Amino acid sequence: MRHIVVIGIGSGNPEHMTVQGINALNRADIVLIPQKGEEKAELASLRRAICARYLTNPRTRLVPFDLPVRDAARADYREGVDDWHAAIAATYRTLLAAHLAEDGTAALLVWGDPSLYDSTLRIIERLRAGADFAIDHTVIPGIASPQALAASFRMPLNTIGGAVHVTTGRRLAREGFPDNADTALVMLDGDMSFRHLAGDDFDIFWGAYLGMADETVISGRLADVAETIAATRAGLRGRNGWIMDIYLLRRR
Amino acid sequence: MRHIVVIGIGSGNPEHMTVQGINALNRADIVLIPQKGEEKAELASLRRAICARYLTNPRTRLVPFDLPVRDAARADYREGVDDWHAAIAATYRTLLAAHLAEDGTAALLVWGDPSLYDSTLRIIERLRAGADFAIDHTVIPGIASPQALAASFRMPLNTIGGAVHVTTGRRLAREGFPDNADTALVMLDGDMSFRHLAGDDFDIFWGAYLGMADETVISGRLADVAETIAATRAGLRGRNGWIMDIYLLRRR
Repeated sequence: MRHIVVIGIGSGNPEHMTVQGINALNRADIVLIPQKGEEKAELASLRRAICARYLTNPRTRLVPFDLPVRDAARADYREGVDDWHAAIAATYRTLLAAHLAEDGTAALLVWGDPSLYDSTLRIIERLRAGADFAIDHTVIPGIASPQALAASFRMPLNTIGGAVHVTTGRRLAREGFPDNADTALVMLDGDMSFRHLAGDDFDIFWGAYLGMADETVISGRLADVAETIAATRAGLRGRNGWIMDIYLLRRR
Repeated sequence: MRHIVVIGIGSGNPEHMTVQGINALNRADIVLIPQKGEEKAELASLRRAICARYLTNPRTRLVPFDLPVRDAARADYREGVDDWHAAIAATYRTLLAAHLAEDGTAALLVWGDPSLYDSTLRIIERLRAGADFAIDHTVIPGIASPQALAASFRMPLNTIGGAVHVTTGRRLAREGFPDNADTALVMLDGDMSFRHLAGDDFDIFWGAYLGMADETVISGRLADVAETIAATRAGLRGRNGWIMDIYLLRRR
């Protein structure tokens, strides 16, 4: 049986790697390194930096490959994503068949942790269902961006006994601030949906490129800092060509 | 200025330690190791195991101390916790004054990650406000139990584009399943509040001692496995004298 180990590599700091992740990396026969198709060049270079720093097994080979590109012109977003995931699963299947012995292990390095708003585990389920050979997989947890955000601000995510609503920018824009929590943790928000909330009612703790050299954080009463965050985000995104950010909102 | 570094050590597997955490440990002058007062003997032994395995700086000293015990007989729970935290802050202050030079660094090893339902950061804020010398602190994120749970089940925490409501057993019992998420992640639930939900409407993914030798996981339709989880939990708790568990509920 071929084996895939999905390793959470943390939110951008190579030192987020766990000992468990390093050991799994060194037990792998191959490490799949997406290159073309990866929107964020820094992610590819982070994966290479992690291998250069932690990979000591001379028999482990890096296998670069071109990640299929999502067809952004597709009218139906969900169908577009579905086809894209199918194409990635087919790419993985081809790579495993070509580069891995029947009892070999391939490592996949996933930004942050594979459990939060990441499609890798769903793609692997699809791969396992569709491949004409047996595949097993395991998951090594990594430092997720909520933990990196909290560490940067030296704050707990929850108030005492309080709930934390983890959600997306799209849902925040549609549903407003949750009425069953005093804290919302918002991910995948390219539209900066926080601008639609009543700025006097919330504090915001925003972070971009957490753990990386460009780490930028801004916090304060939402009314006071919303425009600063929006301008900073636009500037960073323009300069770097991409941005990865997350924020926490807390009812005042 | 004295410095405290709060290091998240992960949910029980010593290999959850990050490189950042190991390096911070080795830069510390002292590591505070609570002994008496720690309810869970395994936590004290995990901290010692981590130091034995990763501490290579011969000048770093372990400083064992007795953690104040919470007065469980207090009528007012919140006042009891408040006094307890004040006593811990006072203990830290005494230890820092006695064992640390004015520019020295003390490490505190926190189970899981300091950002989720942990009081260490609040105690340090109180310590900083009340000490008669200057204290700074930093936080190193660790593998949190939600990530460990998701890794064990090889599943994402969120559905595609869905929200995840992170809450406590007490809140789940009082408020029921959230109406603005299809996933709830429940922590601090000594009462197994999942038993009050409609068992046919949810799947549950339950895990105890995640990452430790005793790791135990059970999943299935809530109606089918609720009693098994309750009996397993009671058995494990009785045998070990303590339990640390977490579960994810998903609307079917």
